[in-house]
Amino acid sequence: MSIERLHDIALSVRNWGRWGPDDEIGTLNYITPESIAGACRLATRGKVFSLGIPLQRRGPQSGTRDRFNPIHTMFRDGGDAPKDEAGVLRLQGYGGADDWIAMPLQCTTQWDSLAHVFYEGKMWNGYDVSLVTSHGAEKNSIAKTKDKIVGRGVLLDVPRYKGVAMLDPGYAITAADLEGTAAAQKVEARPGDILVLRTGHMTTYLERGDWGTYDSDSSPGVSVYTAPWMHKKQIAAIACDNYAVEVRPSELPPFRSPFHACAIPNMGLTLGEIFFLEELASDCAADGRYEFLLVAPPLPVTGGVGTPINPYAIK
Amino acid sequence: MSIERLHDIALSVRNWGRWGPDDEIGTLNYITPESIAGACRLATRGKVFSLGIPLQRRGPQSGTRDRFNPIHTMFRDGGDAPKDEAGVLRLQGYGGADDWIAMPLQCTTQWDSLAHVFYEGKMWNGYDVSLVTSHGAEKNSIAKTKDKIVGRGVLLDVPRYKGVAMLDPGYAITAADLEGTAAAQKVEARPGDILVLRTGHMTTYLERGDWGTYDSDSSPGVSVYTAPWMHKKQIAAIACDNYAVEVRPSELPPFRSPFHACAIPNMGLTLGEIFFLEELASDCAADGRYEFLLVAPPLPVTGGVGTPINPYAIK
Amino acid sequence: MSIERLHDIALSVRNWGRWGPDDEIGTLNYITPESIAGACRLATRGKVFSLGIPLQRRGPQSGTRDRFNPIHTMFRDGGDAPKDEAGVLRLQGYGGADDWIAMPLQCTTQWDSLAHVFYEGKMWNGYDVSLVTSHGAEKNSIAKTKDKIVGRGVLLDVPRYKGVAMLDPGYAITAADLEGTAAAQKVEARPGDILVLRTGHMTTYLERGDWGTYDSDSSPGVSVYTAPWMHKKQIAAIACDNYAVEVRPSELPPFRSPFHACAIPNMGLTLGEIFFLEELASDCAADGRYEFLLVAPPLPVTGGVGTPINPYAIK
Amino acid sequence: MSIERLHDIALSVRNWGRWGPDDEIGTLNYITPESIAGACRLATRGKVFSLGIPLQRRGPQSGTRDRFNPIHTMFRDGGDAPKDEAGVLRLQGYGGADDWIAMPLQCTTQWDSLAHVFYEGKMWNGYDVSLVTSHGAEKNSIAKTKDKIVGRGVLLDVPRYKGVAMLDPGYAITAADLEGTAAAQKVEARPGDILVLRTGHMTTYLERGDWGTYDSDSSPGVSVYTAPWMHKKQIAAIACDNYAVEVRPSELPPFRSPFHACAIPNMGLTLGEIFFLEELASDCAADGRYEFLLVAPPLPVTGGVGTPINPYAIK
Repeated sequence: MSIERLHDIALSVRNWGRWGPDDEIGTLNYITPESIAGACRLATRGKVFSLGIPLQRRGPQSGTRDRFNPIHTMFRDGGDAPKDEAGVLRLQGYGGADDWIAMPLQCTTQWDSLAHVFYEGKMWNGYDVSLVTSHGAEKNSIAKTKDKIVGRGVLLDVPRYKGVAMLDPGYAITAADLEGTAAAQKVEARPGDILVLRTGHMTTYLERGDWGTYDSDSSPGVSVYTAPWMHKKQIAAIACDNYAVEVRPSELPPFRSPFHACAIPNMGLTLGEIFFLEELASDCAADGRYEFLLVAPPLPVTGGVGTPINPYAIK
Repeated sequence: MSIERLHDIALSVRNWGRWGPDDEIGTLNYITPESIAGACRLATRGKVFSLGIPLQRRGPQSGTRDRFNPIHTMFRDGGDAPKDEAGVLRLQGYGGADDWIAMPLQCTTQWDSLAHVFYEGKMWNGYDVSLVTSHGAEKNSIAKTKDKIVGRGVLLDVPRYKGVAMLDPGYAITAADLEGTAAAQKVEARPGDILVLRTGHMTTYLERGDWGTYDSDSSPGVSVYTAPWMHKKQIAAIACDNYAVEVRPSELPPFRSPFHACAIPNMGLTLGEIFFLEELASDCAADGRYEFLLVAPPLPVTGGVGTPINPYAIK
Repeated sequence: MSIERLHDIALSVRNWGRWGPDDEIGTLNYITPESIAGACRLATRGKVFSLGIPLQRRGPQSGTRDRFNPIHTMFRDGGDAPKDEAGVLRLQGYGGADDWIAMPLQCTTQWDSLAHVFYEGKMWNGYDVSLVTSHGAEKNSIAKTKDKIVGRGVLLDVPRYKGVAMLDPGYAITAADLEGTAAAQKVEARPGDILVLRTGHMTTYLERGDWGTYDSDSSPGVSVYTAPWMHKKQIAAIACDNYAVEVRPSELPPFRSPFHACAIPNMGLTLGEIFFLEELASDCAADGRYEFLLVAPPLPVTGGVGTPINPYAIK
Repeated sequence: MSIERLHDIALSVRNWGRWGPDDEIGTLNYITPESIAGACRLATRGKVFSLGIPLQRRGPQSGTRDRFNPIHTMFRDGGDAPKDEAGVLRLQGYGGADDWIAMPLQCTTQWDSLAHVFYEGKMWNGYDVSLVTSHGAEKNSIAKTKDKIVGRGVLLDVPRYKGVAMLDPGYAITAADLEGTAAAQKVEARPGDILVLRTGHMTTYLERGDWGTYDSDSSPGVSVYTAPWMHKKQIAAIACDNYAVEVRPSELPPFRSPFHACAIPNMGLTLGEIFFLEELASDCAADGRYEFLLVAPPLPVTGGVGTPINPYAIK
């Protein structure tokens, strides 16, 4: 049952070949110089919202997919600074600090690359999954999007539309919810937009100051049945304040992430996860403007299937 | 001799207390909502330049300060995708890819935080170096700049001004060079600008397709004597296509990085290094416009003293 | 109160200077060529017991002291093997596998170095704690023991002596328990011995196949008051099947690890933790011989304060 | 030519099925409790030789197979120790040090697992290479040898036999060399022995205090034609002071490592590399005894294809 239902949706949103046989960025193609210039014109107040959460040991990863929170330590620190002039001469200066980090590319606020999820042995645009090896993704890696992720951001604050502080865990956001929210906010999803979807799910964890099992808990998120709506609207990317954009638990078990399966390998849609939206959402509610310039450059990791980011929403 | 000369320059550019005793971002304070809005208005063509180099094993680090190039491997790849329906059921889907990275925070295109370099036992704004421990920088960490690094970028293409393909290794760029370049390009450094300085030094390595010892070779770069000029101009940050912004070898031995010592702990100036400027510079030469919107969000690593970035210059 | 009591015990077992002012290995000095040769003579059956637990993601670390379980991924795997003769030529062979690991040095079966725990600003033998910097331990590092950790192992199976499957969490093993167990087992602790202490605590976790919070749970272990007994007996090292050798919770709060504070920096005693003793203990019970050759070489990590190990008990 | 010649040798030494279809440890099966007990009897002096090199940033890896030298940094160090009683209470003690390491499993003195090298799509005992995935080696991992690597070690000091300080780079050690050395040393290779082969190659690097490109330089080592001799002698493992046991450059180009291809996947022979043999060799020359107890426990990394080790030779 699920397998056929998933297949129907997947095929209905499939964009393979739409931008030629060599394409590796999918719906990011909807973003044009004109839409970028238009987005820049939205930034009239010069107000910047950082949508990235802190990278630290106390973070949202409790073990899903072997992910862990960032491990950050030092090569040099204040204890190594020279104590006297002889030390200054030896160190050729007054010292300093250097550090390094080890982290999953999807451990924090992040973009999935189009190599992140497979469908029936294939990736986005029909590339074979065997092209993702221990050397990384030969096709559809995040590095291919290196100058692509900027455009008009549109916040859809669904709980505010519904008059609640946050959506319930397990609530599947429908296309009607998206349409209703947009209408209430007097904003419209246009081709090339980056949808920024607030579920309010992160609020709980932020308020109690503990991520707990944010990565595996039930969560509100988009229904798999919103994929055709996104396909029709020609959005370029979607980002959310939950862990997986889509609702948990899954609407189509045993598939754990049916929306991912439709969106990434079939539609070629870039997904953003673990976005911090509280301040941006408050501001949009205050001034009634839910559109802005969104700039969220990926780290161009060669062969990478995801990237940590610190997106800027600029109003 | 050097120690006194360095001291004179350092004190002449010192901004401690200028933005209060608790400041941790220094000259980034020069950036205002107005200057950001103004910078956004510069992006009329919607053309994006990605200034970040690829993150991969073949990169610019050959061992300076124990740094290494990014190490990127996979938790899951195409070889783990299910081969049949039983596999799909077991994996709850068609599989996917996940990956992780280990890297110094200053190994690729990057911002230094104001905790990166010390001066006489102190950091920026007079904080004691003992505040940088094995837990990271309690003060002046890169996380403090998380929503701060966007503004008007101004490219100063010094070799183009001088009519050469690239400046010679060891050439110390002077304040007169900066003024001359700006005048020739019909652009002016204004308070709050992010100066993007092209020396041409990266060109050699890009052309031969090998970073070699880019991190320790002699290099053109700014003279320590440009620090007062930057101080007077009230620039917010400076970024360069070489490894250390400043000229190598040092003009004030035994100090290895005298400009760093003036700029970071004393002036509170954010430095950006290893910027890829070739395409941007060509475009500026072609259209004669050397100013643009620069958006270069740091990863908000708690306690971090640097951050990998992929800056966007948008014209 | 605790602070004075701890101080009394610490001073009573302090061995500073006993092996000269430059010593960095403490009680491992009790091991002599003669005792090693004697230990080798105990290995008459040629039966080997591996006392190391598996190094893998599902391990005993749940976050204590920022520790994590080993992260192990591949540079090359079977998916990269050549598919045809052209591939063989290109790869100069039929391929192979390579891998890497990231792990805390104390994340698995391990030795603490004498730089691991401090006491009143000092390390073992009176070295100042400032000698442990971001560059590692200049004194007392695990590398100093590189050819030192082999000798007569003596298993003390306390729960078997007491007729229980395992000691209760929180039970503090006394010197009388150690004496009683030794007597019942007809074995004696001699100078230079490596005591291998079984509490049965690991059994619970092994049986349920889940480490849970083994690293922070209450646990049986040695009382802080056994330190003088070990001092008098001149044992060279002690290893245990729990997380911290000593009992949890602490007998001298607020000190979390008072036995550590006496043993490591004052006595200079090397501690081994997370030893897998089930098979060895069964064998000793079966043949009535609780002494054996113990060979547990540390990885000579320069400046390291601990080391993963796979100790061999050979009977 | 090479492909057939390699094939002939490979098949002539192939042991597949010799220890049953489920075997994963190959020639380590030649080691018996009797041979272990016999080896222990050799340790009459109680003299220990540590054969592991230091694990540190300045090590033998310059980039072969993406390998790097160990990266070791701290979670806590002396700078974090409490300064006063309030600090002691807050930290629940006087502080301490903790650290972590990232390293390739084959970066230092090490054992290769039988999953390390493939031959015509297969591993040791005929297992398919597809069993080595991003999750590690499902068959033939190093963890399978966890209690297996102890036995009689026999040093063959070839340069000493030949009257030279070290063999020339590129010199291929022959079976006659091995026989001649053994005869001169009055020792014989017996079934189950661990051969420890000295070429003198490491001496150069140790003397100049710089590993340089030890991992890729020409090197003396065993000829591929010694594989049948080792097969006939039924040795359990072989370890060497060079980077790859075998001679470099290869005798059978384009194959880079033809001896590996015969020994690991076909014979099931465990190889040890980068062994520090200088002190052991001097001692053997001094007392004329070239046999000893060798204990070299692998770290039981689940799925690992190699392991760092610190082998003990005990005489």
